[in-house]
Amino acid sequence: MYVSDCIDINAKGHLTIGGADTVELAEKFGTPAYVLDEDEIRKNCRAFVKSIDDNYNGNGLALYASKALCCKEMCRIVKDEGMGLDVVSGGELFTALSVDFPAEKICFHGNNKTYSELVYAVDSGVGRVIVDNITELETLNKIAAEKNKKVRILLRIKPGIDAHTHDFIKTGQIDSKFGFAIETGEAIEAVRLALASSNIDLSGLHCHIGSQIFELDPFELAAKVMLDFMLLVKNKTGAELSELNLGGGFGIKYLSSDSPRPFTEYMERVSKVVKAYAGELGLKVPFIYIEPGRSIVGAAGITLYTVGAVKTIPNVRTYVSIDGGMGDNPRYILYQADYEIVCANKANRERDFVATVAGKCCESGDLIQENTKIQRVQPCDILAVLSTGAYNYSMASNYNRIPRPPIVMVQNGKARLAVKGETYEDIVRNDI
Amino acid sequence: MYVSDCIDINAKGHLTIGGADTVELAEKFGTPAYVLDEDEIRKNCRAFVKSIDDNYNGNGLALYASKALCCKEMCRIVKDEGMGLDVVSGGELFTALSVDFPAEKICFHGNNKTYSELVYAVDSGVGRVIVDNITELETLNKIAAEKNKKVRILLRIKPGIDAHTHDFIKTGQIDSKFGFAIETGEAIEAVRLALASSNIDLSGLHCHIGSQIFELDPFELAAKVMLDFMLLVKNKTGAELSELNLGGGFGIKYLSSDSPRPFTEYMERVSKVVKAYAGELGLKVPFIYIEPGRSIVGAAGITLYTVGAVKTIPNVRTYVSIDGGMGDNPRYILYQADYEIVCANKANRERDFVATVAGKCCESGDLIQENTKIQRVQPCDILAVLSTGAYNYSMASNYNRIPRPPIVMVQNGKARLAVKGETYEDIVRNDI
Repeated sequence: MYVSDCIDINAKGHLTIGGADTVELAEKFGTPAYVLDEDEIRKNCRAFVKSIDDNYNGNGLALYASKALCCKEMCRIVKDEGMGLDVVSGGELFTALSVDFPAEKICFHGNNKTYSELVYAVDSGVGRVIVDNITELETLNKIAAEKNKKVRILLRIKPGIDAHTHDFIKTGQIDSKFGFAIETGEAIEAVRLALASSNIDLSGLHCHIGSQIFELDPFELAAKVMLDFMLLVKNKTGAELSELNLGGGFGIKYLSSDSPRPFTEYMERVSKVVKAYAGELGLKVPFIYIEPGRSIVGAAGITLYTVGAVKTIPNVRTYVSIDGGMGDNPRYILYQADYEIVCANKANRERDFVATVAGKCCESGDLIQENTKIQRVQPCDILAVLSTGAYNYSMASNYNRIPRPPIVMVQNGKARLAVKGETYEDIVRNDI
Repeated sequence: MYVSDCIDINAKGHLTIGGADTVELAEKFGTPAYVLDEDEIRKNCRAFVKSIDDNYNGNGLALYASKALCCKEMCRIVKDEGMGLDVVSGGELFTALSVDFPAEKICFHGNNKTYSELVYAVDSGVGRVIVDNITELETLNKIAAEKNKKVRILLRIKPGIDAHTHDFIKTGQIDSKFGFAIETGEAIEAVRLALASSNIDLSGLHCHIGSQIFELDPFELAAKVMLDFMLLVKNKTGAELSELNLGGGFGIKYLSSDSPRPFTEYMERVSKVVKAYAGELGLKVPFIYIEPGRSIVGAAGITLYTVGAVKTIPNVRTYVSIDGGMGDNPRYILYQADYEIVCANKANRERDFVATVAGKCCESGDLIQENTKIQRVQPCDILAVLSTGAYNYSMASNYNRIPRPPIVMVQNGKARLAVKGETYEDIVRNDI
């Protein structure tokens, strides 16, 4: 009924996720709490894995972009579903390795990996390092040489495509901190240097054109640009690169009115372009990576809060204050991100109450949504903010020294902790 | 020379803070690292304490607004300097009490304190609870009644003043999640209810008109509005309230070109208005609280980073990537906040290199400053971002599972850890 299949309303009129009554979850685990439906996550994983089979004859790998939500339990689920992992830091790599995620199925990203992160990547034997710049390429070659290893890499390329998304999350254009631009010649120079580096094995290329993209055209175009560049590489250097990582950025539903194209349609249409255009250019169809993150966990998660003060300012607006805010969900103050909000214990009533849902941080901008329609609420009601599975826990802070909420994993009506909520003791743990 | 007296350049041409060579600090503590000068913090504390003595005959209390930077060591320093503390959550209260901060000198703020936070405040015997709304007033009275206690409070009032600052950090207007508006009549109703609540002792009023304010007029105006309201309270209820909390919001220097009015001038001018106007209205001069936060620690702190890739995009711009970013300093992506950046190991050279300083998070918006002038840098140089003492560590996240940096406290050239840097083990500590 709402933004995701895993959300429903039960006979009591309470909102449910994965068959669990959210009002009972709030009682059992306290609020705020992140709640994720494991089956929805697994369903999404399987859809991507299956499309690699269906559309590329299995000649590819879907990587979960763990920056969307990284914790041990997510790594376990993704591993169990046979996906690979895209990590962007030593901390994400550490999390993955701590649950014995197969290192060879991990791709290590980032515009500025530190020296110690590169050493960690080489020592762990990650499958591919996605090299972002010349400094990194040289450093990595040196580290690998010292360890007498050969490191397999992809080069991050800017295909120069603007995917018409939010300014902050455009990444494919030439004005980006990420990667090598094709049009300036730096991309082909990087290929030459990689090919000439004795401890580097250049497997292929990577691109990523943005986030939360709803259209398919930019993905098709990016695939073509990358294949064109692979042909250029072949013609200029003789090397036929065997791998192409097309990145992620598939849009998800934050609002019921959102209409992202289904992932299956994305996979089908882009694979057709890849296969046909590779044939046209006389290239072998490369091994394909894709990197869904938000589209795996975003709509599979919600956040539960308890309503505190309800403050109506005549002729201005009504503030509904909750017991969380920008600390656990900074996406509204950062990007003015849209969310649907439902009163969990009154989910079957009409949403005809216009409210500004405010967090509890001492900052006026700490809002979760402005002038949005929810059920008429009062103190102690439970609010559920939908589609918060991605980039909420992962971006959470302890602003105002507020502990970060737990992550509760739900499956078939049963709930368990995946990440414990922080305590005050946790907050002062490193204070001397 | 730069934004703060505690910053200098030594004979080696290195940037110093509190007499310590920042290049040596980077070597010893690693990067990123927050570094604060204890003497600068103490100097600022003393200036506020002294102005209460000078301008109000000691009939007042300067509270450190700990949301700017809260850790045990900051609470110790503030306690040692005889200031009170403004806390906004159970976590901040816990931190303060863990170093035996005198509870009676603590004011507890917040637009939506939870039930357990109110219980904690009452049990701890905090000096004042700053009550934000009617729900809270009723809950607090009930909790106090159950414990057979009387709780001293101030009411948070919206004086309706717009301090011409950034949209996100305006708080004095009627359209705010904080406090009771005077003009709608809710403020006087709250006073009546507080006076009628048997376990509440209404000591006075609080207001806060915004953050990072450079002018003095809004502060003078707010003081007058509050005194006018105190007269109204006296006339309508017979109660002469004895305390007035004028909040904080004093602007600091982020850029050398910034010209905030000195705190001493603020204290002098506002105190004159308070004393004269109280006399005019036939009111006793109230006990005055002020709440400096940023102005205590902001310019006393810097953040040190190591330069990674330097990427010049012809005709576009140069990205200088550092080993931190929006995780440890989210103020640029949140507010497009200005900072001065200096190459610590080349501090005596000219800043003639226009660079966009980019963080290492996998997000295009993860920048610290765009097209700013720094010294010409190369990989492994140390960059210092100035005036990061406030709202940097306190707002830091583990986005991308990057550990949060340590806080190093410097005094007279000597450095010690105040907060340990996080480890990968810290990051997975609560993962199940």
